[in-house]
Formats: sequence, structure tokens, C-alpha cells
Amino acid sequence: MSAATVPKALDHSHHLSDLARARESSPLKSLIKYMGKPGIISLGGGFPHPGYFPFESISANVYAPDAFPLHNAPEGTRTNASHGVADVQKYGGDINLASALQYTLAMGIAPLRTFIRDFTTRVFEPAYADFVTYTHAGNTDAWSIIVDTLFNPGQGYFTEEFTYPSAQATAVPHGVKPVPIKIDAQGLSAEDLRRVCEGWDEAAHGGMKRPHVLYTVPVGHNPCGTTMGAERKKLIYDICVEYDIIIVEDDPYYFLQQEPYVLPQHRTASTSATDAVDDEAFLSKLAPSFLKFDYQGRVIRLDSFSKTIAPGARLGWYTCSPLFAERFERQAETSTQNPNGFGQALVGSLLTQQWKGVDGYLRWLRGLRAQYTIRRDFTIDAFARTFVLTPRGEGDATSTVLVASSSKDSKPLFEFVPPVGGMFIWIKLHLSSHPAHPSTPTEIDELERSIWVDLAENGLLVTPGWYFNAAALKGQGHFRIAFSYSDEEEMVKAIAIFARVIKSAFGDSGK
Amino acid sequence: MSAATVPKALDHSHHLSDLARARESSPLKSLIKYMGKPGIISLGGGFPHPGYFPFESISANVYAPDAFPLHNAPEGTRTNASHGVADVQKYGGDINLASALQYTLAMGIAPLRTFIRDFTTRVFEPAYADFVTYTHAGNTDAWSIIVDTLFNPGQGYFTEEFTYPSAQATAVPHGVKPVPIKIDAQGLSAEDLRRVCEGWDEAAHGGMKRPHVLYTVPVGHNPCGTTMGAERKKLIYDICVEYDIIIVEDDPYYFLQQEPYVLPQHRTASTSATDAVDDEAFLSKLAPSFLKFDYQGRVIRLDSFSKTIAPGARLGWYTCSPLFAERFERQAETSTQNPNGFGQALVGSLLTQQWKGVDGYLRWLRGLRAQYTIRRDFTIDAFARTFVLTPRGEGDATSTVLVASSSKDSKPLFEFVPPVGGMFIWIKLHLSSHPAHPSTPTEIDELERSIWVDLAENGLLVTPGWYFNAAALKGQGHFRIAFSYSDEEEMVKAIAIFARVIKSAFGDSGK
Repeated sequence: MSAATVPKALDHSHHLSDLARARESSPLKSLIKYMGKPGIISLGGGFPHPGYFPFESISANVYAPDAFPLHNAPEGTRTNASHGVADVQKYGGDINLASALQYTLAMGIAPLRTFIRDFTTRVFEPAYADFVTYTHAGNTDAWSIIVDTLFNPGQGYFTEEFTYPSAQATAVPHGVKPVPIKIDAQGLSAEDLRRVCEGWDEAAHGGMKRPHVLYTVPVGHNPCGTTMGAERKKLIYDICVEYDIIIVEDDPYYFLQQEPYVLPQHRTASTSATDAVDDEAFLSKLAPSFLKFDYQGRVIRLDSFSKTIAPGARLGWYTCSPLFAERFERQAETSTQNPNGFGQALVGSLLTQQWKGVDGYLRWLRGLRAQYTIRRDFTIDAFARTFVLTPRGEGDATSTVLVASSSKDSKPLFEFVPPVGGMFIWIKLHLSSHPAHPSTPTEIDELERSIWVDLAENGLLVTPGWYFNAAALKGQGHFRIAFSYSDEEEMVKAIAIFARVIKSAFGDSGK
Repeated sequence: MSAATVPKALDHSHHLSDLARARESSPLKSLIKYMGKPGIISLGGGFPHPGYFPFESISANVYAPDAFPLHNAPEGTRTNASHGVADVQKYGGDINLASALQYTLAMGIAPLRTFIRDFTTRVFEPAYADFVTYTHAGNTDAWSIIVDTLFNPGQGYFTEEFTYPSAQATAVPHGVKPVPIKIDAQGLSAEDLRRVCEGWDEAAHGGMKRPHVLYTVPVGHNPCGTTMGAERKKLIYDICVEYDIIIVEDDPYYFLQQEPYVLPQHRTASTSATDAVDDEAFLSKLAPSFLKFDYQGRVIRLDSFSKTIAPGARLGWYTCSPLFAERFERQAETSTQNPNGFGQALVGSLLTQQWKGVDGYLRWLRGLRAQYTIRRDFTIDAFARTFVLTPRGEGDATSTVLVASSSKDSKPLFEFVPPVGGMFIWIKLHLSSHPAHPSTPTEIDELERSIWVDLAENGLLVTPGWYFNAAALKGQGHFRIAFSYSDEEEMVKAIAIFARVIKSAFGDSGK
């Protein structure tokens, strides 16, 4: 499709909540035409004078975009240890404190806006013409704004059967319920989504209409660690077109995509090389965003700097249709207003000045990809040293499951999908191998909990599976392990504790 | 009352909204006891490693706390032009980037929390024992969280008859309506509040129950420029006790309180001295917070650094009872999470390290008081040079109204309360003196609008009165003028335009 023939977003105004419809447009719009008039004196705005901002300048020592190498190296080692200085003065320049620390538009400061627009266009390639990019104060805040904008009480949304609990805690008190869709090794199942849509029975769901929103974390899913490939996304997008469903693509882990995991015994020199040769090859290795299939403007994509710069930045952006963007802006004006100015100025200066824009940021992201691949590898390698890991194929190469047992011939103790994105390994216990033979959901939950306590008493904290349960179903038996934080030495210790406790809990001596 | 006998907050849980009641406590609470265990390895949290934060250190050149003088001086002149350096390294120290830029608790980083607690205790002196202070991402966001926490659709809140429009835009789409209370030269009228409470008629308000919340901006009211004294606040507090009303004290302008305005012809050397001799004398000159009367924990006070440090910080704090604080925290966890880390680190470092805590910040605030007094004075002085300003007493010395006419004997054109706080002068046009003799509300609104357009066409932007109308009543005839931004030269030009346009509009040659 040539650029000239790319369509515009469809009108999705029928998806707006009563609350979003009730928000008026900004009442000062009619006055705005005077505001840019040359020489006009404004006594209109309630702005403090920047002369009273006690910050005269802010400078940050920042890493070079190529601080981290592209190929295997010890975790955390910067091969370019030089620093740049991101410097923001009170006055002058594209980015300055007089503007960034003032009341600003909800859409953020101009250089950051331009960067985000350029980056989104190049990397995600939305398939419609009039998409809008727009800063927000973190994906959690953005989802909260989306809940207000798209849902009336009593409505629901489709989501993975296990889900980030904060996403649920945002929606549920508004009377908005998650409707769980099964997952497999590639994440949300298109087949199950179609099945649930086709057979939707309002009465069986307490009168709830078929949900008009899908909320999904498609890459490095939290907690499941799964990543949807292009084919899966296309299938899901088409179902959403068929059933008129808005897709909220919450994608903070997108740039933590990793090379497929290879067991140590199958590893060769070529599989150890973790990076593509250039930016284009790098981008082509990443699962595409839903935006790439979105010819109707029904995707609301949430990007965040939390995992690629720092969580404390509380800064990210929407990519969505103009209709949704305008309603989000009205909502933001009455809550968070603009994202904080210190973060906008410093992240903006880092990205657009120190790192020279999109190319520099892509180099940084390639370094992160290598780092997370190394972390993922040393974590699963530690499992491979303490358990026998046997692959069980499920479709294509990226959707293998590894089944863990004490020895080649003993019963499986647990399994997990070796992640190709994100920070998490999602351990599914094979509780049927447990000597207690738990059968009721309550028994299974109690066993999950008692093993969790054993782990904690032995010095290892993991996150229990019940914490992520979208449907509050009982009886799963999972743990989530984050490989984003500990170094290799600590991880080896941690997995040793895990192995000792699990084998002991299962009464498994490997025979 | 000695500290030992200060009471605890009453149980105000009956004021919580259905939404606030529906929010569960954090599900991980039961697991927290393991988290601080020495030597425990946590693979639980989804934290990126701080080694991947590209910010190695951040340092800011900051003003000295005594940058601005305490006595009359040219506006904007720093008499201490030295700089300090607020320096935050990635690791080590009380404030560091590894913590501040990580996911942190909604309550904010520890040194800032301690500062806020100490400051609130010393300056506002809450009259109950178990008050809680708690960071938020700006008063607008805090009010948005309060609306969710205290109101069900169909409920209302009392507020000044003119109000900050964003406060209204936050509540109204939730089906929560403002109920206007009259104002006089000291702000919200206690008498009118009592009258409205006593005579509340649900049927006359479309079935709305008597509001259980008062939302007020007591100091430097936006737009009215009025400031409530201690006596007024005590009267209002007692009414709120009688009718079981929660008071939301939105007080961003508290530290922009100014000396009473004295007309140039009455000014003496002693009235030009703008400051008290020390911190205690300074604090004693400020109207007390509602907290000082709050022996029941029914005040939710909102403080902000927006007007005293910078709006872009998007940082402030609640002072309220533990019950409300806990519900606000749950709400914040599913929206803004913690206030941004760059702001917390830099403002925290400025206040607690560079400015050495509460004393330094008080000195800074005294400087701001002098600056805003100077700005307020040169603005009203400019009116006094182009109009005859005649005081009309309304109660005590701080509640004088100045009536403006072209000459001593001509008809009054407008009037305003010379503010003793905040940034705004609220011009009330005497439209009965206008040759068009507008009589219907629509005629008055059209006249306000046409004068506004005349001002804009002549190079002066002010904010039209209709923008602030709590009850969407028509027919007022007001303009809001901000004196916070323009310097004296620009202000003199602005008031000259104002005088020319107003006199011409009123067909008034001063005879």
C-alpha cells in the first residue's frame, strides 16, 4: 500500500463512555486565536514567572547510546564508558526550564513530541494516515484514562487469563470486569478469542454485553513471559475488526525482545551472537506492533520509557486515532495535566540532543536487547544446570515449552516458556506430580502458597501465581520469576534455592 | 490543648464513594513481611536494573534560599545571586537516582516525605494527632483522585460561586455538580453556606442530597483573589462540623500571601517594608490553614510546589486523616503511581540538602512573599495612576474593595478586592454605568464578551469572567487579571490599554 492510499481512521466514537462524552471541549478554544498575536500582552494565564523557579540549569551525566555492546559480554559491562552531558538551561535552546517547568500543554514539549512522532512512524509503521502520538505519565496512568474513556460500569474487556494485577485494579472498582482469554506459548489465543466472541452469552455473563475492548500485553507478557508474533497479531486484529473491538496494546516490554533461547548443549558460536548487523535488521527481528496491521485506527498503543530509560520518568506515549487522543487530552487536563517537566526536559535532552534522535535511541535499545538476552540466558542456564530441561514443541520455534525434571527419567516438576521478550519467566508447577496429589482448586492454592512460604523461608522471594489471576480462578500453581534485576552470581544462588525447595517439596531425589 | 490531649481523627468512612469502597487493599500485603528479611534474594519485583538507567548523575544549579530580598526592591532582582549545586548521584546518599528513578512507593522518597511532614507540622499545626502527609502529582491530580474517592454520581459539592474551571471539569463529567456559595471580600461566605445548608431542599436541586463536601481555594482565590482570615475559617469549619461536611482545602497560593495593599497617597516608609523580622513573625502573618481548626480530621489539605518551586514539578502533598490517605494511595497506585522521580530527586535535594530543610524553605517563601507584594503593588499602582480608586470598606482592613472611576465625580466603572494573596485581580465591571444599559443576563454576557474582544484587538489578553462560573449563571461581567508574570513596564502598558478600552467602551471621558 503506498503512502498516498493509506486510509484514515474510522469513526470509533460509539466506543466512548458516557463520562468521555460528558467532557466538554476546552472552553477557551474560541479565545486561542488571539494568543499567538505578535506583541500582545497576556495577563490571562495564571503562570508564575520563571525568574522564581529556583532551578537555573540542570545537567545530567548520561551514558553514550552505545554504552552496552551488541554481542555477548558479561552482564552490565559498558564497553563504551564515556559520558555525555545533557544540559538544560533556564532560557534559550530547543529545550529549556522556563518552558519545561512551566504549565505546559498536556501533549508535552515540542522536541520530545517530534522525537516520539518520528520514532513511532519509523519503528511501528501504523497502517493508517492520521494517527496521533501523545505523551502520558506512564502506561498505568494511560490505562486509567482509557478505562474512564471507553467503559461504562457493567462493561467488560477481554484480556489474557493471567494479567498484571494493577491493570485489573484500575478497572474492577469502576464495575468493569476482565473476561479471560486463554494463553498459549505465544500469548493470547486467537482461537479462544474467536470462540468466546462467537459464543457470547450475555445471560451467562450476568447481562454483560460482549466486550468492545481487548487489553493485551503482547510482548514479554507480565506474568506469562510470552510474545505474540506477527501472524498471531494479524489473526487477532482481524477478529477485532469482525467484532468491532478496540485493541489496547500495552507494550512496555517491546524493546526488551530477545533472541530465541538455545539450550547450552545446542549452542554454537553463531547462536551466541546476539545482535543483528544494523538498525533495520534489528527492527526486522522484532515482532511488529498491532499498529502495523491497523488500517482502521482501532489500536490504542501504549509505549513507555519505564523499561528503556527509567520507571521514575513516569513518561510514555499513546499512538491512537485523533478522536481518542482528543478525549484523552481532555481527561489528562483534569488529572495529571502534562507529564512532569524535569522528566520531559531531561529525557528530551538525552534523546534529541545527546543521542541525536531516533538513530541514537535505536542503538541504545539494541544494547538493551543484548543485555536482556544475556540475563535471560544465564537464568535459564542456571535452571539447565539444576534440572533436566526437555523441549516440548508447540508450533513454531519461538513457542517451545521447556519441561523441567530432576533427571531424565523422573516425573516433570514444572514447565515454562523460555521468553523472547520482557523480564519474566512464568513457572507452571506440575502439581499432579506432587505427593499430596492436590485435586480441588483450594488444595492446589494452598500447596502453591505453602511452597511459596518454603521458598521465602529459605531465602528466595518469587511472586505467587494467584496474584495475576484475571478471573480470580483458583487452582493454577504458578510462580513468576523476574530476571531483570539480579546479577548472574545471585541468580545462580537463587535457582539453587529454588531447586532444593522444589525437589524437596515434590519428594523428588531424581530417581 | 497540650499535645497529649490532641484527639485522633473521627471515622469518616461513611463519606467514601462506592468506587473507593470497591478498591481492594493491596493484595501483596500478606507477603510484605518477608521483603525486608536480611540476605533474602528477591526475584519478585519487575524492576529494571538501575545499571541500565542512562542517567549517571544529575546536578542542578539552584538559587540560594535568600536569593530574593525581604524588603522592597525592584521586582525580580536577586540580592544574593550565588548558586548552590543540588547534586544527585546514581548510588549512595540519602537521595539517589537508583532509588528515585526506580518504581517507588506512591508515598514518595523518604527524605522528601520527612521534609513534608516536618514542614506541615510546623507551619500548619493540624489540631488532631494522627494526620498523614502524602505526596501527589499536583493539586489537579489530587482533586481528581478525591472526586473518585468521595463522590457517587448525582452528589454535589459546595464551592465558591466563581471557581477554577478545571476543578469543575474534573467533577462534572462524573455527574458531580458544584453548588455555588456566595463570596465577599474575604472569599466564601460562612453566612451563605449556613443559609444553603439550613434550607437545603432536595427537590429544588433535582433530588440531590445536601452536599457532604466543601471544595474551597481559601487563599488568593482563583479567580476572585480573595483570602479567608482565621475568623472566617473557624466559622466555616464549625458549620462543616455541624453538617458533617468534608473540607477540601486546595491551597496552592498559600505562600503567595502578601501585605495588605496601601494606596500610594497613604503609603509611608513603614508600610513599604514588606516583611516580618523572622520566620515566626512571618508565619504569624499568614492566614492559618483549616488544619489549625481541624480537631476531627475532616480537612483534606492540598499543598503544591507549583507556585513556590515550579509548575512542571507536578509535585505536592495531601494532609489528611489516615483513612483518606490509604484510599488515595490505592487510587494513585492504579493511575499516576508515584510522582515522577526526577522531580522528587531534584526538589528533594534542593529542599533537604541545598536549603537545609524547613528553615531554608521558609526563607525562600519569605522572599517570594516580598516579590508578589511588589508585583501586586505595581499592578494596582498602575490602576491608581489611570483611574481614581476609592476604598469601600467591607468589614475589616483586609476586606476593602477599591472602586474605580475616571475621575472623582464620575460613575464607577469597575471594582476589585486588592488581593492579599495569590496572583489574581478580579475585576467586576459596573455594567449599569455602561451606556448600553444591559439588563438581561444574555445582554450582559454579550457586553462582557465584546469588551473582551476590544481588549484583545487592542493588544491585551485577560481571562473572561464566564470561564469561572461555577453555576453557569449568566450575567456577571468580570475579567481576571494575573499579576504574576508581566514585569512593571509591561504591566503599565497593559493597564494603559485597559484604561483606554474601558473608558471608551463606557463612553467615559471622566466628566
